[in-house]
Amino acid sequence: MECYKSRTLTFTNANIIEGYTVAGPKENDGRYKGFFDIALEDDMFGQKTFERAERKMFEHAIDGAIAKANLTTMEIDAVVGGDLLNQIVSMSFAARKQHAGFLGLYNACATFVESLIVGSCLISNGFENVVCAAGSHFSTAERQYRYPLELGVLRSPVTQWTATGVGASVLSSASETPVPRVTRATIGRVVDYGIMDANNMGAAMAPSACDTLVRFFKDTNTVPEDYDAIFTGDLGKLGSDILLDLTRQEGYDISKQQHDCGASLYWDEQQTYQGGSGAACSALVFNSVLLSRLRSGAYKKILIAGTGALMSPTTSFQGDSIPAITHLAEVCI
Amino acid sequence: MECYKSRTLTFTNANIIEGYTVAGPKENDGRYKGFFDIALEDDMFGQKTFERAERKMFEHAIDGAIAKANLTTMEIDAVVGGDLLNQIVSMSFAARKQHAGFLGLYNACATFVESLIVGSCLISNGFENVVCAAGSHFSTAERQYRYPLELGVLRSPVTQWTATGVGASVLSSASETPVPRVTRATIGRVVDYGIMDANNMGAAMAPSACDTLVRFFKDTNTVPEDYDAIFTGDLGKLGSDILLDLTRQEGYDISKQQHDCGASLYWDEQQTYQGGSGAACSALVFNSVLLSRLRSGAYKKILIAGTGALMSPTTSFQGDSIPAITHLAEVCI
Repeated sequence: MECYKSRTLTFTNANIIEGYTVAGPKENDGRYKGFFDIALEDDMFGQKTFERAERKMFEHAIDGAIAKANLTTMEIDAVVGGDLLNQIVSMSFAARKQHAGFLGLYNACATFVESLIVGSCLISNGFENVVCAAGSHFSTAERQYRYPLELGVLRSPVTQWTATGVGASVLSSASETPVPRVTRATIGRVVDYGIMDANNMGAAMAPSACDTLVRFFKDTNTVPEDYDAIFTGDLGKLGSDILLDLTRQEGYDISKQQHDCGASLYWDEQQTYQGGSGAACSALVFNSVLLSRLRSGAYKKILIAGTGALMSPTTSFQGDSIPAITHLAEVCI
Repeated sequence: MECYKSRTLTFTNANIIEGYTVAGPKENDGRYKGFFDIALEDDMFGQKTFERAERKMFEHAIDGAIAKANLTTMEIDAVVGGDLLNQIVSMSFAARKQHAGFLGLYNACATFVESLIVGSCLISNGFENVVCAAGSHFSTAERQYRYPLELGVLRSPVTQWTATGVGASVLSSASETPVPRVTRATIGRVVDYGIMDANNMGAAMAPSACDTLVRFFKDTNTVPEDYDAIFTGDLGKLGSDILLDLTRQEGYDISKQQHDCGASLYWDEQQTYQGGSGAACSALVFNSVLLSRLRSGAYKKILIAGTGALMSPTTSFQGDSIPAITHLAEVCI
């Protein structure tokens, strides 16, 4: 008996009129080279600290998205999103430069899709233009979550590499030409399968990705074959394999449609092991190559499922397992 | 010339059918003694760490709010909110116990009003029942943001005291009886007046509170006299004085209506200097005494303006000033 409520929202006018990306040097050496609006030559971005560099990436991504959409700062109603730093300071400090309202969001690496959902809700509620943004920086995340960069700690083969970059979308209630739209979205719930290894986040997040994907298919009476592609956020290679097994057990074979933003971001020889992770992963891939393929008609209907691991160093030190969440957006043109 | 866009949203069916509070021992010794649903005798709440105690407060507040509203966990569509810990782990881990979707929010001590806004948007978009929650714990915040508790560092007279507690509201698209409703809300923008003293957050937040209040009055063509009370979140005593000066300069005298959740939470002899602060402040006061006064008819129309300081220890160490944000909700019965 199916006793869960629908967690899926429907949107009528959440037009994604533009996307903008600022990518780190390693990211622009990867599989999506040339798709990004700005590619940094140096991940310090002319700043004194990595944290200031991350903030500057946010400032450029938000301003860049607004300009690329032929809008001015004064025409934006709200900026929504977040990053991986404590107190989401990169996004919050970058938002100082805007006149628009700001809603700070945090769902780890699922934050970008969370921002698309919250932004779409604001558009439904009457706002005209909303910027949705998320990002991360390898060097700030590494030293906040793991070890000082100078230590040169050996990495486990199940780890992923926190991507450096910021992606921003401009949602607008009106569009003169047909553009990709957020048509439906499923809000994820927090799923915890008791994974304790903070190096193996793909395994912690895969059950959550399965939960949200299956929830979406049931809520909307759709099947994987209805979509040209299903992009998960940053499960990595191992996490993607686990997801395929789990969804198959639930009666859905997504092996033909599923791609992972993290697993596809880098080339194998870039030695990121399981691939990319971080809030930048899905934000970068969505706002560059996915929007581009939707606009060209290569894709007509896709799902983007942002995956996030919700632990902190403190919870891991105190012996907690790793809860995860996956938010999903259906994007059609 | 007025060239800013409205940042105010209108809601038609964001009924606040219930509120629930879990308060710390010091908070229940304060001015609102007896208004809280649960008052802890010991702020460890039977847990091994303060962080686990904070999480348990969230679990009890969310479950308590749902039960008090005569709903079951399965009838909740989404839980939205956050806390002050890095990666908002108190709220995120507590959300594991729910079947509902989860949106993690972070705007420091403005998070509770942010959660009311996001929750109201979800109700407008078709969700039936949404729980909005925020909170904080003195001992987890103190050791994360300032000093180890054991150091016994002397406190500056401009400091505030991070309140211990969690407040949760249940929003519902339908209500059989008239209940307080979120009728309008203004999303705050990030305002930074260059305050560098992380002990004086009232001064950092007052310009932001002024900005949002004036924006709301202009967007809605209202004046302070239209309201029975205007509660700011946690400006404290000094911050409230600054706010009264700033709004007067903008042509609005709010001195008769303005109260501050933080400044009013404790008695003077509890030695909190400027009063309470923390995400718990407005969440506790709103979900106890304010909802009670609205239901009794003592208040018919109020404004609640959650104020937040968006810095982190890292940004302060790196020489940054303190940006602030204020989100506002109009609540009427």
